[in-house]
Amino acid sequence: MKKIRLLSTGGTIAKRYDEISGELVFDEAHIKKMFSQGRSNLNIKISPLMLKDSQDMDENDREIIYQACQDNLESYILITHGTDTMVESAKKLSSIKDKTIILTGAMIPYAFKNSDAMFNLGVALSAIETLPNGIYITMNGQIFTWDNVQKNKKEGKFETLI
Amino acid sequence: MKKIRLLSTGGTIAKRYDEISGELVFDEAHIKKMFSQGRSNLNIKISPLMLKDSQDMDENDREIIYQACQDNLESYILITHGTDTMVESAKKLSSIKDKTIILTGAMIPYAFKNSDAMFNLGVALSAIETLPNGIYITMNGQIFTWDNVQKNKKEGKFETLI
Amino acid sequence: MKKIRLLSTGGTIAKRYDEISGELVFDEAHIKKMFSQGRSNLNIKISPLMLKDSQDMDENDREIIYQACQDNLESYILITHGTDTMVESAKKLSSIKDKTIILTGAMIPYAFKNSDAMFNLGVALSAIETLPNGIYITMNGQIFTWDNVQKNKKEGKFETLI
Amino acid sequence: MKKIRLLSTGGTIAKRYDEISGELVFDEAHIKKMFSQGRSNLNIKISPLMLKDSQDMDENDREIIYQACQDNLESYILITHGTDTMVESAKKLSSIKDKTIILTGAMIPYAFKNSDAMFNLGVALSAIETLPNGIYITMNGQIFTWDNVQKNKKEGKFETLI
Repeated sequence: MKKIRLLSTGGTIAKRYDEISGELVFDEAHIKKMFSQGRSNLNIKISPLMLKDSQDMDENDREIIYQACQDNLESYILITHGTDTMVESAKKLSSIKDKTIILTGAMIPYAFKNSDAMFNLGVALSAIETLPNGIYITMNGQIFTWDNVQKNKKEGKFETLI
Repeated sequence: MKKIRLLSTGGTIAKRYDEISGELVFDEAHIKKMFSQGRSNLNIKISPLMLKDSQDMDENDREIIYQACQDNLESYILITHGTDTMVESAKKLSSIKDKTIILTGAMIPYAFKNSDAMFNLGVALSAIETLPNGIYITMNGQIFTWDNVQKNKKEGKFETLI
Repeated sequence: MKKIRLLSTGGTIAKRYDEISGELVFDEAHIKKMFSQGRSNLNIKISPLMLKDSQDMDENDREIIYQACQDNLESYILITHGTDTMVESAKKLSSIKDKTIILTGAMIPYAFKNSDAMFNLGVALSAIETLPNGIYITMNGQIFTWDNVQKNKKEGKFETLI
Repeated sequence: MKKIRLLSTGGTIAKRYDEISGELVFDEAHIKKMFSQGRSNLNIKISPLMLKDSQDMDENDREIIYQACQDNLESYILITHGTDTMVESAKKLSSIKDKTIILTGAMIPYAFKNSDAMFNLGVALSAIETLPNGIYITMNGQIFTWDNVQKNKKEGKFETLI
């Protein structure tokens, strides 16, 4: 069984409702809850890197993600990430040639009844088990290569450039 | 984009609670609800074949599944199926050499809060987009070939034979 | 604040899906989960009496419920109960004149996404805080007295006799 | 059966996640979904008054609520409302002496898995069926009179003044 490293960075997938502030905040426990609900049997180690809206990520944050991909020994890396700058982070990682790296996230947080988080996590994990080395984004049930994907912000879905 | 055919046959994934009878019954609409929740953008046609507990499937039922795999023009076929005889149905299909066929299902029905259905559907779809021709089962986040998988009924999970 | 005693007896409200057997079983923890989700601040003690489909309850079971209502010191008693014989159990308790006793349950188990359990629990608790001594059933948002209620099994709802 | 008027004004209970903006917005359909899930049989007419965070309500908004309570012919009025200024709106209504008016809401929106909305709606409906004329708040399973209640913002729960 492949050894997989999951790097969590926050994003929509991780948000829960804070009843004191009345605002969305990040739930550090969301990844473990999802694997448990999916009855996953995979060999996965989880490293929380940060808890950020991807709109608030800067070059420094992307450097941290890049370094974590380099430093972790696993060849298979799954990154949970906000959708707004997921494509930029994928580009940042494109110089890494010897690993299979998948970025995924959610349009609706895991904490909501109608969330796509469990579905997206499933797509990403299966992709990481089967795809050759490279940098990919999986959203909307589709697998995209890092250099042919964009977020259509009007429709709230990912699509190829052409 | 690959053209995928989904054959639904019932199983745990499809069960809902019937408030008149107080029993679990099959919900024909479960597949559409799941694709909608997953915000899937894939090109998938759905064919309901039957609505059965896989424990109640006989040789005749498996023949219907086999014929549907043969008759549908798509090379990529996803079958939602009860878990108890999923392995037997996979065996039945093993003579089909020119298609990628994935069987999946759920340990907990989609209608339950803690269901693994969305996760399993994601794993199966991604597998169908990436795997070479062959017959596979995807459960518990893992991809199994038809000839090296069994359901561990005591623990309620799928595992390799050796 | 009134001291309330909750007697749980099983019924639809308490069912969860057992992934090993593939059948509905009773979840002993359902009551605590519901109070926690409701952010209830009430002073309530919980006594699990049994875990039974109300169809399977016999005169002996109803005697146990009757005794528990008598033995517990609280004047306010909430009973979670299967819907099929809820009316019979209410009748059994009708000789108790010095307490407010409410029976409630659910048409769809708490474990399902579309459950009415939280709603029904809320209706019952508020009723117990406001109603005079007597035996009542609360279902479908309505408050019924024990001697003017029946379950319409065809439509799956409770209604008055006339 | 009592004729009840429900006035919806927005608040936490009504929020859903907008996947285009990535923000919480108001879902006009939340009330109907809740009654349907609760399998309510009550005679209730729904009037959407506004969709506002109660923090953003001003004297003008409270005047609209006050007028709606006066203008509607029903003697039983349920108001769904944000929690932050629920107490202020209750005060505003305290001069109405010939109706039973209940204000309720939620700490966690209905759209979230762990929402208290269904529970609170149940408590409010039962209270409206049983309480004498007056202005009340129902939250955390408790019934408060308008002149003896405050929101403890630190703990996120409602409590009596003394």
